[in-house]
Amino acid sequence: MKLSRPIGIFDSGLGGLTVFKAIRRLLPGEDLIYFGDTAHVPYGSKSTRTVTGFSLDIAGYLASRNIKLLVVACNTASSLALRAIEKKLDVPVIGVIEPGAHAAARATRSGRIGVIGTQATVSSRAYTNALKSIRWPIKVFEFACPLFVPLAEEGWWSKKVTAMTAKEYLKDFNRTRSDTLILGCTHYPLLKPVIKRIVGPKVKLVDSAESTAAWVYEKLKNGPRTGRGGVKFIASDDPSRFKRLAKRLLGISIGRVEVRRFDRKCLKWKFIRF
Amino acid sequence: MKLSRPIGIFDSGLGGLTVFKAIRRLLPGEDLIYFGDTAHVPYGSKSTRTVTGFSLDIAGYLASRNIKLLVVACNTASSLALRAIEKKLDVPVIGVIEPGAHAAARATRSGRIGVIGTQATVSSRAYTNALKSIRWPIKVFEFACPLFVPLAEEGWWSKKVTAMTAKEYLKDFNRTRSDTLILGCTHYPLLKPVIKRIVGPKVKLVDSAESTAAWVYEKLKNGPRTGRGGVKFIASDDPSRFKRLAKRLLGISIGRVEVRRFDRKCLKWKFIRF
Repeated sequence: MKLSRPIGIFDSGLGGLTVFKAIRRLLPGEDLIYFGDTAHVPYGSKSTRTVTGFSLDIAGYLASRNIKLLVVACNTASSLALRAIEKKLDVPVIGVIEPGAHAAARATRSGRIGVIGTQATVSSRAYTNALKSIRWPIKVFEFACPLFVPLAEEGWWSKKVTAMTAKEYLKDFNRTRSDTLILGCTHYPLLKPVIKRIVGPKVKLVDSAESTAAWVYEKLKNGPRTGRGGVKFIASDDPSRFKRLAKRLLGISIGRVEVRRFDRKCLKWKFIRF
Repeated sequence: MKLSRPIGIFDSGLGGLTVFKAIRRLLPGEDLIYFGDTAHVPYGSKSTRTVTGFSLDIAGYLASRNIKLLVVACNTASSLALRAIEKKLDVPVIGVIEPGAHAAARATRSGRIGVIGTQATVSSRAYTNALKSIRWPIKVFEFACPLFVPLAEEGWWSKKVTAMTAKEYLKDFNRTRSDTLILGCTHYPLLKPVIKRIVGPKVKLVDSAESTAAWVYEKLKNGPRTGRGGVKFIASDDPSRFKRLAKRLLGISIGRVEVRRFDRKCLKWKFIRF
């Protein structure tokens, strides 16, 4: 099926499929094109320069596929590279930080908010800056949880190991007396039940997937409908793991995944057969 | 200090420093140049094609720095890309699989050997193939342990979480009645005490670092001494994490790390300031 002015969505890998799912639910008539940068995953332990480089490559490629809007469905790329992507593209760009921050600012009563994310997201202070521009006074506490992504990808959601890891990571959060916790990585919603048990029922968990989809809806609602509900998945490495995990982690059955990689010799994005 | 015909050593990141350390101890007079591909780490969950692409890039770059021998100090790259690297370079190439397999074949009495490694290493069956060409009959049991690398990098060697993870991963190995276990990933020696406790005192643990260094020594012992014990570290991403972890994980104090990245526009490896 040929897509017509699709919405582009990209992530370092699989996590962004949580955002993909939310957009699909809210805008079932739009065509969607999803790019998972599985050759370079993870972004969360890498530098601003490197993540920006990867992100600009993919944003440029998606622009060449005639997208009408780009969703950066990765917290790390949104934290480090959103401005650079906006500068490069002619279409609107929506990251996950602002929608998540707005949802958290609405949810909190005490004005004390926790954020968990990758090392790169936490170091960038992107959530703190976004929250402080929305609401004042506010107290934000950010914590890096590097093992959550590999645990989620291993499918160990209900194992004791994951609960113990979460306890260790959330120990300091539990001392902040916050009433809201932002799941600042698109993988983390997979660990929601474990996280919920550890922070207790009084803490509201905010994940950016729903609120980002709502932003996309707002942005597009007055424009013309262009698609027919078509979907295309692209990855930069062997898609078999991507497909298997999409099914296992998110219940998304992915038929065909196109593999594309930038080829240095001819300076083009080439199709790769796996 | 300008290096003179150094030994090149490369890994996807930090793990290869265990091999670097062993070579340094055995050949203190040689110049060494170490490349950690921190922009693309990890290799262990990626495809043969992708890992081969990254490896050939780095091997080619190190060749341009006039190395006299290349050590592929990464089990995944050795499993998937050794032949391709050998074809490309004019100097000898030593991987970690064969030295590790030889050491294990010497160590076993029962001829029953376990191997733990990344998903890619285990799927390639490189250790099984190497062991079967050395000794027959032999029984080899391979197990993927994807969480060991992130746990080692988090520095959680003595936490209960790590012991529980190891117990889960090694449950099936413990049923194989093997007397030898190959630590088939250069990160795993960092978790040796935990692994030892779980497999028990009768199982010999083989890590490739020492035996690979011995192979390098054998290869070079009759050649001319060229270096003066100089060392250079190169990474493909921000070196601050690399330095911090090298110190914390291996007690190696790294002064300066050069950052190099292939630049698509001028088709050259460019120096990057961080």
